[in-house]
Amino acid sequence: MRISELGRRSGVANATIKYYLREGLLPPGRATAATQAEYDESHVRRLRLIRALVGVRGLSVASAKQVLDAMTEHRGDTHEVLGIAFGIRPPGEGAPDTSGEETNPEASALVDAMGWSVSAANPARRTIDETLRALRSLDIEYDWQALLPYAELAERTARHDLDRIETITDPLEKAEQAVLLTFLLEPALMALRRLAQENESTARHGGGDT
Amino acid sequence: MRISELGRRSGVANATIKYYLREGLLPPGRATAATQAEYDESHVRRLRLIRALVGVRGLSVASAKQVLDAMTEHRGDTHEVLGIAFGIRPPGEGAPDTSGEETNPEASALVDAMGWSVSAANPARRTIDETLRALRSLDIEYDWQALLPYAELAERTARHDLDRIETITDPLEKAEQAVLLTFLLEPALMALRRLAQENESTARHGGGDT
Repeated sequence: MRISELGRRSGVANATIKYYLREGLLPPGRATAATQAEYDESHVRRLRLIRALVGVRGLSVASAKQVLDAMTEHRGDTHEVLGIAFGIRPPGEGAPDTSGEETNPEASALVDAMGWSVSAANPARRTIDETLRALRSLDIEYDWQALLPYAELAERTARHDLDRIETITDPLEKAEQAVLLTFLLEPALMALRRLAQENESTARHGGGDT
Repeated sequence: MRISELGRRSGVANATIKYYLREGLLPPGRATAATQAEYDESHVRRLRLIRALVGVRGLSVASAKQVLDAMTEHRGDTHEVLGIAFGIRPPGEGAPDTSGEETNPEASALVDAMGWSVSAANPARRTIDETLRALRSLDIEYDWQALLPYAELAERTARHDLDRIETITDPLEKAEQAVLLTFLLEPALMALRRLAQENESTARHGGGDT
């Protein structure tokens, strides 16, 4: 198909498709003339993936490219793909950052208490320590121990996440779904918390006017 | 204290403080001369709150103002404050939007299945339906029933959330903490999921090189 049909099928504007081609996010089509190329179903699928990562989840084009490259390169290795997608293992060059344990002591205490096996470079460690610092700057007493009940619920959430992709046999599809379900479910999981909070607040304090 | 000390104590730049004063986000100080005013501890606290809502959680200045106004106005009514903070009840004018049940059928099915009492106007309903549509546009079979295990975990999360503020007796402090813990914990909860995912992925597929 031509670029115009590719745009129609994927819901991505032609100018944006050309930008993704220039950035190497989308592989080139098969050249049929000096200024024409032919695209196939793999391009439609790839564009939908890009749209999900960049449009829905707000990744930068550079981050989306790393995730997509990792999915292609390590297609059989879901663990490796997830590692790159989460920013744990930088793709390619350089030794992994291992300063996470010293610079984020509260995350480390939490990980130890949970008995989790988590690399020092996982950037989620920093988020934990930053959140706790922000709460304390507002005089809210909150430390890593207060997060333990949430950590136990997160452990069950992660089990559901991985159960979901366990049954997929095609390795590329498995890696794709692992990344998409991790990124795209985040807003829905926060929305579920808000719905559950309203329900719980109504049960405890609410009148009949909600 | 003068505005310069207020800036130092709160960590907010003087120009930003003046902007918040103009926008009505921060109440005026006590005028001591034509161009001078005196601020107190309540201003320091309010500025830290604004910084948390705008800076850490990325709310717009207008949204932060609605939340803060609600916290002051309904200080004794945590349920009401949470409702406004989550965008369920628009502060002041206008009837609440009740189109949420018809326009977001999957969220409604989920809420019914969970037996939750959730208003039709809760904007989290739309997030649920949008996420499921985004997943299906990527050929991932996913419906509201697939979210049920997560909804059960969200229910327990919400219970922890409300337990945490249950023991606070000062009504203004209670409303403040309800809002802050809801907004500020979101990144930490997603970080916990990422840490737990790495742990679970390592346990299932990982080698010794993580």
